[in-house]
Amino acid sequence: MARRNVSSIAEFALIRTIAHRFPGHASGLIKGIGDDAAVVSAKEPAWWHVTTDLLAEGVHFDLDTADPATVGYRAAMANLSDIAAMGAVPRYLLMTLAIPRRFKSASVFAIYDGLMEACRLHDVALIGGDTSASRAGLFLGITLIGDTAAGRALFRHGADIGDHIYVTGTLGDSLAGFRLLNERRSPRSNRRSPSLSAADRRTLIERHLRPSARVKEGRWLNQERLASAAIDLSDGLSGDLRHICEESGVGAEIDGGALPISAPCRAYAESRRLSPVDLAVAGGEDYELLFTASPRMHAAIERQARARGFQVTRIGTVRHRRFGIRMRNTDGITRPMPATSYEHFFA
Amino acid sequence: MARRNVSSIAEFALIRTIAHRFPGHASGLIKGIGDDAAVVSAKEPAWWHVTTDLLAEGVHFDLDTADPATVGYRAAMANLSDIAAMGAVPRYLLMTLAIPRRFKSASVFAIYDGLMEACRLHDVALIGGDTSASRAGLFLGITLIGDTAAGRALFRHGADIGDHIYVTGTLGDSLAGFRLLNERRSPRSNRRSPSLSAADRRTLIERHLRPSARVKEGRWLNQERLASAAIDLSDGLSGDLRHICEESGVGAEIDGGALPISAPCRAYAESRRLSPVDLAVAGGEDYELLFTASPRMHAAIERQARARGFQVTRIGTVRHRRFGIRMRNTDGITRPMPATSYEHFFA
Repeated sequence: MARRNVSSIAEFALIRTIAHRFPGHASGLIKGIGDDAAVVSAKEPAWWHVTTDLLAEGVHFDLDTADPATVGYRAAMANLSDIAAMGAVPRYLLMTLAIPRRFKSASVFAIYDGLMEACRLHDVALIGGDTSASRAGLFLGITLIGDTAAGRALFRHGADIGDHIYVTGTLGDSLAGFRLLNERRSPRSNRRSPSLSAADRRTLIERHLRPSARVKEGRWLNQERLASAAIDLSDGLSGDLRHICEESGVGAEIDGGALPISAPCRAYAESRRLSPVDLAVAGGEDYELLFTASPRMHAAIERQARARGFQVTRIGTVRHRRFGIRMRNTDGITRPMPATSYEHFFA
Repeated sequence: MARRNVSSIAEFALIRTIAHRFPGHASGLIKGIGDDAAVVSAKEPAWWHVTTDLLAEGVHFDLDTADPATVGYRAAMANLSDIAAMGAVPRYLLMTLAIPRRFKSASVFAIYDGLMEACRLHDVALIGGDTSASRAGLFLGITLIGDTAAGRALFRHGADIGDHIYVTGTLGDSLAGFRLLNERRSPRSNRRSPSLSAADRRTLIERHLRPSARVKEGRWLNQERLASAAIDLSDGLSGDLRHICEESGVGAEIDGGALPISAPCRAYAESRRLSPVDLAVAGGEDYELLFTASPRMHAAIERQARARGFQVTRIGTVRHRRFGIRMRNTDGITRPMPATSYEHFFA
């Protein structure tokens, strides 16, 4: 990997330190950090899944609300979530950093520590990457590689009319946690939140700062051939459902009353006089899986999810494309979902 | 891939346009742009080579001296060069962009056009990536994947005492071209260059803006098992030779008089009263290959290179680690090479 930098020697020393601190031991790893490319061995027929992300300070994260370790953790988790949505097993991660001068090496190592915490949860090896200087903010480039058996993956394009629509976990927690973090920064708004318990507050903030990618759930859906299409919820329910519908050429009807919303999220909504359903629909970065499945699979999904301890909720039905993407509210009226539910997390 | 952006809809539209403009048709490609991850098929035992780079405006490139298409082209070529240095066949590329608001979509497409020009030269398919907003400058994250037969690659760590040291092509051209480009920006210095022909000037600038990765040469060295170690010259001869020596646990003696220097580069050096050898040693981003080989291979390397039309020059010998990394100058005196020859290209 090219190594052009204002301080090439310091950078090389840093890479060596990283290579020693995080030695990449992993099945199939031939050469990790320290050559022109990382080398991994593909022994048998397989599909390889590659996802990449570029995360910019001030756009994707804010160092005022997230420390460097959290930034590293969340960057890894966002990519783990993409691999989970393919039903693949995450294997190898590469990270490139563009580091502003104001950064101390302790902060750089903290980014790696957070990244590696997320990687260790899923047995992923750090096999390569690079560091360079940045004249602007901190930038992280993440590449994550996973695999599945050949011919077996969860795509966005397989949803069929009549399929059920499901999500894992609960929706809206991350958005609630994000808002709580930002309330902290403006002391005045703190006074408006008397009715949310400290425990609920901690839970929601933790859900935002330390999300979990649904890797096990994705592998299960893929291996058992239960799902017809899948995506991870990074943009939020409305936006990501739209991706599935566009790629599959279908519409969708969501039952607003069925959306899984946690007790802390409901408490937050109540304390702020917000609709919990609005939070669930508008929230992004929950990193839950949104998937569709034939009605024939419904009993198996319910039974197997229970046996494995996975929370899976049916939230709607795939409709004809002409139906559009609509939500039945608790008042019984069906309205179009907004074109994008995306809420820009970090201002 | 996560898609968080100030303008999520515009971004999604942009990605769709890119996917349509650059449809990823490639052997083994199952799913290109448009899902949570790109999917490629690995049919038989192989080694996969993965390299990644994060390029920052103002650090790795400067839009005053390189237009967006050139930035895209050079970003791809730098990564192609890494894959070339492994002796691998480049296959799949992913690019993530962080785009400042001031950018027009025409400039974004120009980056892709330049990138694709480099990719097409080596039959590489664009299979994924992402775009997002940047509050600072333009950032490019590139990931390139190549393959070799299992068990067969060029590493940095195989150089042995007594091995010959070679380079492909000529050295210093890119640095000369870079300096010419920057002279253009300061009109006063233009007057100091009466003796360089317009053709030489164009050649050197072209070598800087449109470098060629030595993919064919790398494959040849790997397939014929000719080289004991290899690296691409991105940092410059002194810095990259140091990487080989450190990874191989050896020293090196370079013959300054043997360095391959082009006629335009010599003319440039003469016109500026510089030492052409200094240019060759200090210059980076030539993207030539630096490799070592057993003396037993010398005749085969010379013969096969000639037959294939590759320019390969022997420039020195691998020594014991205690010898250090030294260069015999044309005056016959051997001096240590500087610890880094890196010249920071873009100020």
